[in-house]
Amino acid sequence: MKLNESGLLIVISGPSGVGKGTVRKALFELEGHDLEYSVSMTTRPPRSYEVEAEDYYFVSESEFKRRIEADAFLEWAEFVGHYYGTPLDKVQEKLAMGKEVVLEIEVEGALQVRKRMPEAVFIFIAPPNKDALYRRLQRRGTETADTIERRVVKAEREFPLAHKYDYIVVNDEVMNAADRVLAIIRAEHAKTERAIYKYNALMGIHQDEDE
Amino acid sequence: MKLNESGLLIVISGPSGVGKGTVRKALFELEGHDLEYSVSMTTRPPRSYEVEAEDYYFVSESEFKRRIEADAFLEWAEFVGHYYGTPLDKVQEKLAMGKEVVLEIEVEGALQVRKRMPEAVFIFIAPPNKDALYRRLQRRGTETADTIERRVVKAEREFPLAHKYDYIVVNDEVMNAADRVLAIIRAEHAKTERAIYKYNALMGIHQDEDE
Repeated sequence: MKLNESGLLIVISGPSGVGKGTVRKALFELEGHDLEYSVSMTTRPPRSYEVEAEDYYFVSESEFKRRIEADAFLEWAEFVGHYYGTPLDKVQEKLAMGKEVVLEIEVEGALQVRKRMPEAVFIFIAPPNKDALYRRLQRRGTETADTIERRVVKAEREFPLAHKYDYIVVNDEVMNAADRVLAIIRAEHAKTERAIYKYNALMGIHQDEDE
Repeated sequence: MKLNESGLLIVISGPSGVGKGTVRKALFELEGHDLEYSVSMTTRPPRSYEVEAEDYYFVSESEFKRRIEADAFLEWAEFVGHYYGTPLDKVQEKLAMGKEVVLEIEVEGALQVRKRMPEAVFIFIAPPNKDALYRRLQRRGTETADTIERRVVKAEREFPLAHKYDYIVVNDEVMNAADRVLAIIRAEHAKTERAIYKYNALMGIHQDEDE
């Protein structure tokens, strides 16, 4: 499939506790885009406020494992006893229709996607500094001290992986970060490797591939 | 010089009559940037409304040629009997101070800059279609039929060179085009190859160059 025919896959990722979910939600509230969010699948039980097929697809562990066996995930990971994954068929469907698909996933998952779909756009949401991230993790009232500790350890392992991404966006202030992500998406559309087909067609230019 | 230490050089270019000057001016009217315009040098006589050192540095042909000999231009070109060029020293000075420098130049000049400073960001301003550009050239009341014809011939030669740029921005509506250019500049700052040094320093990460 050529770059000009299929949609753009945008991977928003970053260390545990950096606030990538908040940035992703703020991005969807901005004007001037037509993005689709790819809903993840999980074995974690739904929280009271969570809606099936909107926040997650909630499935049993046996169902999730069956799908792993069937290679039905674009990426998946296990964390604190639960599985999380991106259903491959839905992403492929949307991309084939020329839609822009946003994934918001863990670093481990993002590196899996990188191998499978290197043409996707990989954005690392970074904390303004380590302390800000630790404070954020502490503030999450819903979690036990043990879970917080495991998230800190995970974040420490993820910090040095930023260089594997295409872009680094510092989450200093959520709306700023969302604005920067949107700027990146707009710039990616203007990239010559993507925009040249439409331009050449419009101008009646027949370019040799090796020119 | 490392990418993180010097400023960003942004080259706005495109075929004759596409309106790159208008897009560049609209860009400078937008909020949220700290760009500096690199004023060109020319042997063309100033128009009544033009200001020395703001619109152009106006010099004599012998002075311009002396500077060509001294390799004092980042790029230069001759068109319709006049010379136009970008003084190299001023660009280098600003970049060394970490400033963002915008050039608005002809396609021929942009390709010269590409060879000399490949790390610059090259943006091709494209017309929405050929007719729009021809109409634009006709409307320029100040020019003779002969000059218009030469501009059309020049534009035709420049159309197929878009693929040599990093980005293609269609000038469908000036403010839209300026917005897209600003998005590109913001995205370029977030590119990992530029942002990683600051991020690693902030997070205390020592990365091997070949990692």
